[in-house]
Amino acid sequence: MRAVIPYKKAGAKSRLSPVLSLREREEFVELMLSSVLRALKAAGIEKIDIISPSIYGLEEVEAQVILDEADLNEALNAYLEKAKGPVLIIMADLPLLSASHIKEIVSSNKDICIVPGKGGGTNLIFLKNPSDFQVKYYGSSFLAHCAIAEAKALSFEVYDSLLASTDIDEPDDLVELLVHGKGPARDYINQKFNYEVSRGRVKLNPIE
Amino acid sequence: MRAVIPYKKAGAKSRLSPVLSLREREEFVELMLSSVLRALKAAGIEKIDIISPSIYGLEEVEAQVILDEADLNEALNAYLEKAKGPVLIIMADLPLLSASHIKEIVSSNKDICIVPGKGGGTNLIFLKNPSDFQVKYYGSSFLAHCAIAEAKALSFEVYDSLLASTDIDEPDDLVELLVHGKGPARDYINQKFNYEVSRGRVKLNPIE
Repeated sequence: MRAVIPYKKAGAKSRLSPVLSLREREEFVELMLSSVLRALKAAGIEKIDIISPSIYGLEEVEAQVILDEADLNEALNAYLEKAKGPVLIIMADLPLLSASHIKEIVSSNKDICIVPGKGGGTNLIFLKNPSDFQVKYYGSSFLAHCAIAEAKALSFEVYDSLLASTDIDEPDDLVELLVHGKGPARDYINQKFNYEVSRGRVKLNPIE
Repeated sequence: MRAVIPYKKAGAKSRLSPVLSLREREEFVELMLSSVLRALKAAGIEKIDIISPSIYGLEEVEAQVILDEADLNEALNAYLEKAKGPVLIIMADLPLLSASHIKEIVSSNKDICIVPGKGGGTNLIFLKNPSDFQVKYYGSSFLAHCAIAEAKALSFEVYDSLLASTDIDEPDDLVELLVHGKGPARDYINQKFNYEVSRGRVKLNPIE
């Protein structure tokens, strides 16, 4: 089996721009990608492809880089169509994901295992027969992917994990990284922000 | 073992007031409480106490009501101090929680099983020896509860579930209920809101 990670460093994570500069966001996504690569390798997955519109930030990465300037869905669907054997599609912004999550996900006894992201997204999809499936990211992709599996009469499982479902797109997501994370991506954010604790949920405060 | 649910209907869920009226919020918390009670009963937990500052909304509930006007922490700690046997503390705003989550949580082989909430909160705590423990809700209660367990040299487990960790406090949380939920609490929200699907996360739109 292979893992495939869509990735773009240039101008990454624009929804974090209220709290992180362009340079910081680009440094941070690189640390998150490294975290995902470490988790994959610790789970025993050695064949890793990164699909990116540019080599920027991937010059020295320990994975195969596939350059594709197409839209995320087009690029991934072209990849899936040609794939031989099972494929794990995995987003690059999952710093709470561990090797044990990955091992469980790829051990699914269904045709497909889907890990939702926050707000209706999809963080990982494990496909035993990738050429049977087309992805449809953006918006409520989790429901779209469940519907595609149903329409194709493929059995699927929804993997229920807070940590695997925490993708980092918005400032509040950084709170989850500080509370539940460890490692370089968490350390990077921990240098820059404090918790602000009130009676409601924890919020971020920049460190002056 | 017993389950205890802190609950307040009057003026509930003020952070949902941008999208739901007072009457709607009070109706909605009642539906969420019913959902939690159904999950507990389906998990075989029959001894259920509800701690509330008022009988309002609990006139016909199928559980024992303990009236206590004290602060959440004071009321729960007084309850724990007197408890005989294991206690599951469970919040009333968990409409994605199922009986199978509850069965797994109360089967923990540690002294304590903690289920985090969004933004550093705590959604459930299972305590084998409740009189050994004091709760500290509000703010980053998840980290506080882990620290209390460590300070008392109690073994603990963090239960990793997106569904059990989804407490409903803010408008974005209703998206998770629409995407992942079923039952009356989900139906109630589904009558009032549509998805707004863009390239980012799903947002709510009121139905005109």
